Amino acid sequence: MKIAVDAMGGDNAPGEMVRGAVAALAQRELEILLVGLPEEIEKELAPFRNTVGERIKIVPAADVIGMNESPGRALRQKKQASVVIAARLVKEGKAEAFVSAGNTGATMGAALFQLGRIKGIKRPAIASPLPTTRGMSLLLDAGANADATPLYLSQFAQMGAIYSEVVLGVHNPKIGLLNIGSEPEKGNELSREAYALLDKLPLNFVGNVEGREITAGAVDIVVCDGFVGNIVLKMIEGLAMAFTIRLKEELKLGLRNRLGAALALPAFHKFKGSLDYQEYGGAPLLGVNGVCIIGHGSSNARAIENAIGAAVMAIKKDIVAKIVENIRKPEGG
Amino acid sequence: MKIAVDAMGGDNAPGEMVRGAVAALAQRELEILLVGLPEEIEKELAPFRNTVGERIKIVPAADVIGMNESPGRALRQKKQASVVIAARLVKEGKAEAFVSAGNTGATMGAALFQLGRIKGIKRPAIASPLPTTRGMSLLLDAGANADATPLYLSQFAQMGAIYSEVVLGVHNPKIGLLNIGSEPEKGNELSREAYALLDKLPLNFVGNVEGREITAGAVDIVVCDGFVGNIVLKMIEGLAMAFTIRLKEELKLGLRNRLGAALALPAFHKFKGSLDYQEYGGAPLLGVNGVCIIGHGSSNARAIENAIGAAVMAIKKDIVAKIVENIRKPEGG
Repeated sequence: MKIAVDAMGGDNAPGEMVRGAVAALAQRELEILLVGLPEEIEKELAPFRNTVGERIKIVPAADVIGMNESPGRALRQKKQASVVIAARLVKEGKAEAFVSAGNTGATMGAALFQLGRIKGIKRPAIASPLPTTRGMSLLLDAGANADATPLYLSQFAQMGAIYSEVVLGVHNPKIGLLNIGSEPEKGNELSREAYALLDKLPLNFVGNVEGREITAGAVDIVVCDGFVGNIVLKMIEGLAMAFTIRLKEELKLGLRNRLGAALALPAFHKFKGSLDYQEYGGAPLLGVNGVCIIGHGSSNARAIENAIGAAVMAIKKDIVAKIVENIRKPEGG
Repeated sequence: MKIAVDAMGGDNAPGEMVRGAVAALAQRELEILLVGLPEEIEKELAPFRNTVGERIKIVPAADVIGMNESPGRALRQKKQASVVIAARLVKEGKAEAFVSAGNTGATMGAALFQLGRIKGIKRPAIASPLPTTRGMSLLLDAGANADATPLYLSQFAQMGAIYSEVVLGVHNPKIGLLNIGSEPEKGNELSREAYALLDKLPLNFVGNVEGREITAGAVDIVVCDGFVGNIVLKMIEGLAMAFTIRLKEELKLGLRNRLGAALALPAFHKFKGSLDYQEYGGAPLLGVNGVCIIGHGSSNARAIENAIGAAVMAIKKDIVAKIVENIRKPEGG
C-alpha cells in the first residue's frame, strides 16, 4: 500500500511530516512517498535512512503553497506545488491516498481538480473527528463548503453514515442535524429544509441536536454546513485552551491548591491529552474520487502518523467504492 | 424605578424568580412587579413579606406560556400570559423594564408586539454575555434571528457597540465578525457582505475573528447571525459541562489523584463558577422600544437577581434613547 504525504504542508513542515511518516511505517504493509523539496526532506530523513530503507521515497516538487496563501491563486500559479503533485500521484495510480496538513483550501482544490467528484455528489465535505464526553463523534462539513444547500447537507449525512459504518465500524450510526431547537420547524431556512430531506432518507436520523448535546456525544454524526462546522471545531479548540488556562490560574492561588495541583498533575495531563487534536489524526475529504486526508495545520509527528493511519483504514475499507455504491442519487440531479 | 418580572417564566419558576426579586431589592431605588398566577407567587413570597413590604407587588396574569410551546401559537392563544402582561406594563409606562427567563421566542414576540422596534432597526438582537479567558465579551445575535442579512449584522454591531460603551462602560469597544478565516474574502456569502458593510461604518471594527480568538477575548463584541450565535453559546455550556465531567473522571483514578483533587477542590469550584451562566445575568433584547432582559431558561435566584441588575443599568443609562440617537439610518431603508 502506497500513501503520498505532502511533506511541505503544515506549520511544522517538513520535520514533523517526515517523523510522522517514519513512525507510520510500524504498519508493515506501508510505503510512503514524501512529496516536496528534496533537499529539505532529505535533511530531516537522514537520521532515519538506515531504518526506513526503501519504504520511504522522495517525490520532488518544486513549489510549496503557504498556509495563508489564497488557495485559488496559489493553485493557478504553482502547478508544481507539493500538494498538487501528491494529489496527482493518487490520480495516476502511483499512490492510493494522499495526506496533507497544509493550506486546507489548496488541499481541497488539488483533490477536486486532480481526482474529481464522485458521480452524483454535489460537493465533497470534510468529515472531522469531534471529541465528546462519550468518545468520538464525526462532524461534517468541517469547512469545505461555507455556503450549503439542503441537498448538500443530505449528502453529507449519507457520506458520513457510510464512512462511520464502513471505516469507523459504528453500527447503524445515529445522525443529528445541528440546530438551535429540537422541533423540526426550528432553525434557519437551511436547517428546516435539510430536516425534511433527511427525514425521508433511509438513515438513522434522530432529528435536530443542539450544541449541548453534541458535546455529550448524543449522536455519532453531526451534520451542518462548513461555516458552522468550522466555527464549532475552532470553539472546541479555543475552549480547551481557555479552560486549561483558567484552571491553572485557579490552582496557582494558595499553597493548598498548589499542592493539590502537583499531586493531580498526571491526571491533568491525561485530561488535556483527551482534548488534543493531535491524537485524532486527520479528517477525510469525502466525496472526491480518491482518498484524501486533511490534517490540522499545527499537526505534529503524532498527528501525521494518525492521519496516515486514517488513510490506511480508508483504503482497506475501500471507502470510495462504498460511497459510489451507497449514495442515493438526488432527485432530478 | 419599577421593573416587571415574569414570575412564571423559566424552569425554576416561580420560586427562584421570587427569591431573585427579593435579593435584587438590595438596590435601594427599586420596586418590583411580579407578574403571574397570584396564589403561586404569594406562596413563594410569604416568607419574605415582612422584609420586602410594599416594594414587591403582584400583578395578576391568568396564563403561563410553557418553555416548549410554539411561541407564535402560544402568543395568539394566551393573551393574558405573564410575559405578555409584563411587556405591556413597560408599554403602558407602569414599569421601565421587564425581565423574563421563560420561553425565549415568546419573550421576544411579546417585546416586539407590545413595545415595537426602534425606528430604522430592521431586527432586534439578543446581546448575550460571552465568557472568555480575559473576562466578558458580548455576543449578538444570540438567537433572535436564525436567518440574517448583511444589513441586520451591521445593525447588531452598532447596537452592541452602543450597549457596550454606554451600559458596560467599555471605551471604544472592539468589534469582530465571527468567521472561518481572517481575510475579508473568507467565509460565506453573508459574512463577506457583512464585512464590507462593517468596514464602512464609524466603528472600531477589527475584522474577522475565529472561534479560537473569541474564547481568548480578542474582541469586546462578537457579531454573527442568531443561528451561529445560539450554537456558539450552547457549545460553551456543553463544553463547560463536558470538561468538568472529564476532569472529575480523571481525578477519581488512583489515590494520588483523589488526594490532589480533594486539596484543590475549592479552586475547582471557583473555576466552575467562572463558567457559570447564572453569574452573568440576562441578555438584553436590543432594538425594541423599551428595556427587555432575557434570562437563561434554567435561571436560579442569583441569575434573576443579576438579570434585574442588568435591567437597572440599562434603564439608568437610557439605552433605548442612546440607540435611537446613535444608530445610522440604513441607506435606502
